Amino acid sequence: MTKLVIPRKTVYRLSLYFRILERLHQNRIETVSSDALAKAAGVKPTQLRKDLTYFGQFGTRGLGYNVDALHSQLTNVLRTARFQPVILVGAGNLGSALLRYDGFAKEGFEIVAAFDVHPEGAKNAHSKIPVYPIDRMSGFVRENGIKLAILTVPAAAAQSVANELVEAGIQAILNFSAIILQVPEQVVVNNVNLAIELENLSYFIT
Amino acid sequence: MTKLVIPRKTVYRLSLYFRILERLHQNRIETVSSDALAKAAGVKPTQLRKDLTYFGQFGTRGLGYNVDALHSQLTNVLRTARFQPVILVGAGNLGSALLRYDGFAKEGFEIVAAFDVHPEGAKNAHSKIPVYPIDRMSGFVRENGIKLAILTVPAAAAQSVANELVEAGIQAILNFSAIILQVPEQVVVNNVNLAIELENLSYFIT
Repeated sequence: MTKLVIPRKTVYRLSLYFRILERLHQNRIETVSSDALAKAAGVKPTQLRKDLTYFGQFGTRGLGYNVDALHSQLTNVLRTARFQPVILVGAGNLGSALLRYDGFAKEGFEIVAAFDVHPEGAKNAHSKIPVYPIDRMSGFVRENGIKLAILTVPAAAAQSVANELVEAGIQAILNFSAIILQVPEQVVVNNVNLAIELENLSYFIT
Repeated sequence: MTKLVIPRKTVYRLSLYFRILERLHQNRIETVSSDALAKAAGVKPTQLRKDLTYFGQFGTRGLGYNVDALHSQLTNVLRTARFQPVILVGAGNLGSALLRYDGFAKEGFEIVAAFDVHPEGAKNAHSKIPVYPIDRMSGFVRENGIKLAILTVPAAAAQSVANELVEAGIQAILNFSAIILQVPEQVVVNNVNLAIELENLSYFIT
């Protein structure tokens, strides 16, 4: 079966719908209107309906969507996206914090190893995830067929580490470093910059 | 002086340009072409030029932008966005990790206090930020004129905590909880959902 080609921002919204439907499903709610689902996801109803056309229509006019049917459909679409082993590179302040965060595992992502230039210095007392020296990174990625990496190294090191990751076979990077990575077209990068998020919010405070 | 009305996504990109210009400035580089600056920020040159028209043109055809001039201009625009006191609500796993993260302070954001339903249980050994019981939150926000909050409570509690924050005067929320918050129009929310970021990336792994 070939994978549906769905734009990245749509996939992001599908993840949101999926989580809302999961809660509805757990609460034994059987149907949901497109308006209610759109509101819960913070999107316009037209956007929701457009997103759901990627895998056929489930909405019945006036009756809304069947929660279980839509939930299963989204599970199928997103299933491959879960249970990917992940490595984390850069076990400094933020990296160590993320190693102690259990939210990834809860959602089906296991951080199998971390790498740092000073593994012995990693503040890793509360985590069971091993921290290896960074010169073992490429070998580990190759041997274990790792495709997904979390990058929490300082900005000055980020591009060269990213190059090495891509060279070793990494296809997707969640980048917390404060630079925009230059990567080949087939590699996907999502950026999370917590300070910029705060700066952005602050700009709108009156 | 009235504040320029700049769209949120543009402000986000200005933060990126600002950081790149800061590095160029530190490296005593005097001019930068729009192509080079756009590439470093991961945007198209047309987008960059459009973004910079919000405060007049600095580019000289064929010579590029004067780094110092553009850096000062962006400093002025974003200045108000820094040194905002911030509170963090929900000192669980992720919240505690963020309390130990020093990257906010480095960028001019001080987390002045944290709040939790079980403050005594917060894993806060390595942080100097006080963790108070959540029933002191509204009073603290009002007394200290806090406008900005980081929300790291469980999804089930997020909306009611957000309501309370808004009621107390919070104008901007960096939301890590896995729900979309319903807030009045004048309140801005940026969402960071680390698991969804990973799920999104994983979808595109072949």
